[in-house]
Amino acid sequence: MPHGVVNVVFGTGAKAGEALVCHPDVPLISFTGSTLTAQRIMEKSAPYCKKLSLELGGKNPAIIFDDADLSQCIPTTLRSSFANQGEICLCTSRIFVQRGIYSEFVKRFVAETKKWKVGNPSDPTVDVGALISKEHLEKVRSYVKKAQAEGARVLCGEGVDSLSLPGGNQKGYFMLPTVISEIKDESCCMQEEIFGPVTCVVAFDTEEEVVKRANGVKYGLAATVWSSNVGRIHRVARRLQSGLVWTNCWLVRDLNLPFGGMKASGIGREGAKDSYEFFTEVKTITIKH
Amino acid sequence: MPHGVVNVVFGTGAKAGEALVCHPDVPLISFTGSTLTAQRIMEKSAPYCKKLSLELGGKNPAIIFDDADLSQCIPTTLRSSFANQGEICLCTSRIFVQRGIYSEFVKRFVAETKKWKVGNPSDPTVDVGALISKEHLEKVRSYVKKAQAEGARVLCGEGVDSLSLPGGNQKGYFMLPTVISEIKDESCCMQEEIFGPVTCVVAFDTEEEVVKRANGVKYGLAATVWSSNVGRIHRVARRLQSGLVWTNCWLVRDLNLPFGGMKASGIGREGAKDSYEFFTEVKTITIKH
Amino acid sequence: MPHGVVNVVFGTGAKAGEALVCHPDVPLISFTGSTLTAQRIMEKSAPYCKKLSLELGGKNPAIIFDDADLSQCIPTTLRSSFANQGEICLCTSRIFVQRGIYSEFVKRFVAETKKWKVGNPSDPTVDVGALISKEHLEKVRSYVKKAQAEGARVLCGEGVDSLSLPGGNQKGYFMLPTVISEIKDESCCMQEEIFGPVTCVVAFDTEEEVVKRANGVKYGLAATVWSSNVGRIHRVARRLQSGLVWTNCWLVRDLNLPFGGMKASGIGREGAKDSYEFFTEVKTITIKH
Amino acid sequence: MPHGVVNVVFGTGAKAGEALVCHPDVPLISFTGSTLTAQRIMEKSAPYCKKLSLELGGKNPAIIFDDADLSQCIPTTLRSSFANQGEICLCTSRIFVQRGIYSEFVKRFVAETKKWKVGNPSDPTVDVGALISKEHLEKVRSYVKKAQAEGARVLCGEGVDSLSLPGGNQKGYFMLPTVISEIKDESCCMQEEIFGPVTCVVAFDTEEEVVKRANGVKYGLAATVWSSNVGRIHRVARRLQSGLVWTNCWLVRDLNLPFGGMKASGIGREGAKDSYEFFTEVKTITIKH
Repeated sequence: MPHGVVNVVFGTGAKAGEALVCHPDVPLISFTGSTLTAQRIMEKSAPYCKKLSLELGGKNPAIIFDDADLSQCIPTTLRSSFANQGEICLCTSRIFVQRGIYSEFVKRFVAETKKWKVGNPSDPTVDVGALISKEHLEKVRSYVKKAQAEGARVLCGEGVDSLSLPGGNQKGYFMLPTVISEIKDESCCMQEEIFGPVTCVVAFDTEEEVVKRANGVKYGLAATVWSSNVGRIHRVARRLQSGLVWTNCWLVRDLNLPFGGMKASGIGREGAKDSYEFFTEVKTITIKH
Repeated sequence: MPHGVVNVVFGTGAKAGEALVCHPDVPLISFTGSTLTAQRIMEKSAPYCKKLSLELGGKNPAIIFDDADLSQCIPTTLRSSFANQGEICLCTSRIFVQRGIYSEFVKRFVAETKKWKVGNPSDPTVDVGALISKEHLEKVRSYVKKAQAEGARVLCGEGVDSLSLPGGNQKGYFMLPTVISEIKDESCCMQEEIFGPVTCVVAFDTEEEVVKRANGVKYGLAATVWSSNVGRIHRVARRLQSGLVWTNCWLVRDLNLPFGGMKASGIGREGAKDSYEFFTEVKTITIKH
Repeated sequence: MPHGVVNVVFGTGAKAGEALVCHPDVPLISFTGSTLTAQRIMEKSAPYCKKLSLELGGKNPAIIFDDADLSQCIPTTLRSSFANQGEICLCTSRIFVQRGIYSEFVKRFVAETKKWKVGNPSDPTVDVGALISKEHLEKVRSYVKKAQAEGARVLCGEGVDSLSLPGGNQKGYFMLPTVISEIKDESCCMQEEIFGPVTCVVAFDTEEEVVKRANGVKYGLAATVWSSNVGRIHRVARRLQSGLVWTNCWLVRDLNLPFGGMKASGIGREGAKDSYEFFTEVKTITIKH
Repeated sequence: MPHGVVNVVFGTGAKAGEALVCHPDVPLISFTGSTLTAQRIMEKSAPYCKKLSLELGGKNPAIIFDDADLSQCIPTTLRSSFANQGEICLCTSRIFVQRGIYSEFVKRFVAETKKWKVGNPSDPTVDVGALISKEHLEKVRSYVKKAQAEGARVLCGEGVDSLSLPGGNQKGYFMLPTVISEIKDESCCMQEEIFGPVTCVVAFDTEEEVVKRANGVKYGLAATVWSSNVGRIHRVARRLQSGLVWTNCWLVRDLNLPFGGMKASGIGREGAKDSYEFFTEVKTITIKH
């Protein structure tokens, strides 16, 4: 790589980011972050007509059918909900469980969630560390409170279980993995990206219904589908408005494959071929002979 | 084509256009028009994170080297400058002529320009019709006046020749094809898109110099290069910041090839494969087996 | 299409075919037919170094797991075995049925086979017409006799049921759809392409075993897999040595998709993109600038 | 790379090569060598229906127009004719020079050829080493003799100049770079691949004529075109029957680009994308949902 091709500039979005976004000699912006910041980038870069590749937020559904293999589905959905304290754009935050196994799923899922240990992430027995900042912790907590105020039920975690931390971690921004149920699809916890260890679990009856509800948010980043039936897996994967669909698994990634979201989850795709094309300007040269 | 797939909505940009741009159920916008309107589309669509394909304006150079075949170059450059009254985004508006043939080119080009007949376009002997509106005619004329005020020389056309029209066309917004010389690169007539029958002609000395000057505008849509030398054609075509380069020809187009501009001339390309991809959302489905 | 681009030459392989294959001005051969004829084409065209696209024979397996939906599997496997008297390269001739449903499958499949009516194909109630020639009918019958001689059991059709035809069809080369069981994988009826209304049905126990047995022939054209399990469908489809795999269906075809076989079933693929590439010679031109 | 993926087997074509070509478990053959051996591979592999990628011989033309830059053309054509003793499939062996510069080209080309020093290739002042074997040297020499017998003129090299070698190299299979003129297009030296330091130089008049003569051999591997005119370069490059065309250069290669010949020069192309596709069998899987 020739000297100077890659430059790393440290700074906040408002300072370093905006300086790049508004500079006439920067022809394109590849951004990974929130949908809100992306809007600002789109507006600020508009006078310069910049190419944009945007990897934004998600409100990612897990769809779990009656015939799912729960022995694999439950531990993977735990990880997909709470890995990195839920601070991954690909994390699951809406779990749709088919009526026939709803009670069993909730019972086992909550029991497993309670086993996750919160604390210092350099302790190898710990599963969940602290959130990124005090402000973010407060924001995440406020979502749980709003859900409770709307009549939803918190099955475990924030506000209902007590968090006892070792002495050295008392000042960290820790939060228990939290499972919410009996919540409406139009609730803000079911519509907005929380980006914390909070997941909602609701029941559904039919394939037709769950596809519609899963698609009923402004985001379209990642979805998981759990079923052993080949026809259903393909039908549902095809109908989901989601740039990424994992069936009977989560976060299996090959850097050659397109990566990115639909709708408010982004514009463009990353990946070997996609990124190459994004960073290239095509020129059509016609030569008379 | 199933009923309802294509819908044609008539209306102004401010009404019909903006309603589409700001509607949450319209997932993408393919727009051909001015860079100014595109900026508005980018800003207005930002909250909805829409995919955009933008085909915008140009300030397209023609680069004519000493060894060009003027018998082909002159009539084609006339067409590329004045076809459709210059109201084509692909029209030439900056003609760079190498010093050794500059005088001859200007003499012959102006003589040919004067032969173009302005009038009712349904008259088969007419070459140039009326501009789109009174406002636009006034805007185009104002550019010529600004150039004169800055010290440039109008070699023929607007303000220096008289336009006599048949009785029936007296009320039309007609303008004579206009050639301006002795104008600086930083002049607004050399920087801004006029979108009328106005072209500037300037001299250059070296290949290195002309590439830099041709690239010295905010646009990057189309360029023509005239030379018989194979190495020069390929070197210059390669270095021009332009989505389209025609060498020894103009406006030869194959709908399979990518079409569109760099820089402020647009985002994305149209064409069989490119348009197919733009109107498609890629979904990556991972199936565990 | 310009006059003369497409020319249809009628004649036998030995005369018209060989004249084309051995002509130095014919740069490529696209052939659909038997593997034996393809070998002759390869040998005869070798001195001219011709590009070849070969769509040849098959010994296509149907793999039917315990969890298959027999209500769809049985009628489709009947069609895939006996459509056009089995004279389609894509026809099934080896049916592998998992042990748990083997008896039921055989009983129902044979019962349905017996319902197929042989006769004049312009009679709309008829399912199976005559074979292409007397010689071919004799060849197909000889395979059934060989199977019987080796100890296999003919469950219905040729030799065990009687074929009564209307008076007008007495001279046609008709044969009853024939199902053979209790036959070894190494038998010629399980290894060679018969190209007639003859199919073998055998039992298997495990996925691992059936993949190995299905792949244990020299051909690799088409396979069908019947199961409702998503993991199994994908695992088995992936491991089969077959250019085409249909799961829970047969002969669903999109002309944009690659079509053709592996191993002795052919070289190259047909389809929109594949055929375009086969009929094109790529030229790499390097221009010094 | 996992252990065992790549295996290097040493041996002659008749032993090691044929064992691979005729082995039923070897599904494809990628071969670089003579057209004669390729024919044998095609015939021998026919019963196994193997995929073949063949990079074979050439009888590569250099086409030099009146307006070529001889200061670059002559040294490059020397290299393209005599590099590695002409034992490269891409070497030039037919030089077509336009009438207007024919005499000058021949004079300068022969003078430069005579400067090339033959001897031990580990001596840095040496340009040409020994041929691969005694048999091959004899074969190459026989071509020169045949040309002389047919009335062609040997301008320098084999048979007309004397080769004096240092004592230590007396037993090597050395030969002087040899230029033949006044030779007919149908002569075997103008039709067959010699694969030695022998090149023919002939005159031509028109573009139309030289394209026809250049294409008038059974091979179609590589061609060079020398001209400064952009239209001519593109017209001629387009019409040559040659997998590779270098204009105003030779042997500039990018491993991402397709590499290989038309006609008797081979089947298929090598290169990043092409080789990937050759070593892959496409499987079309259709899943019912």
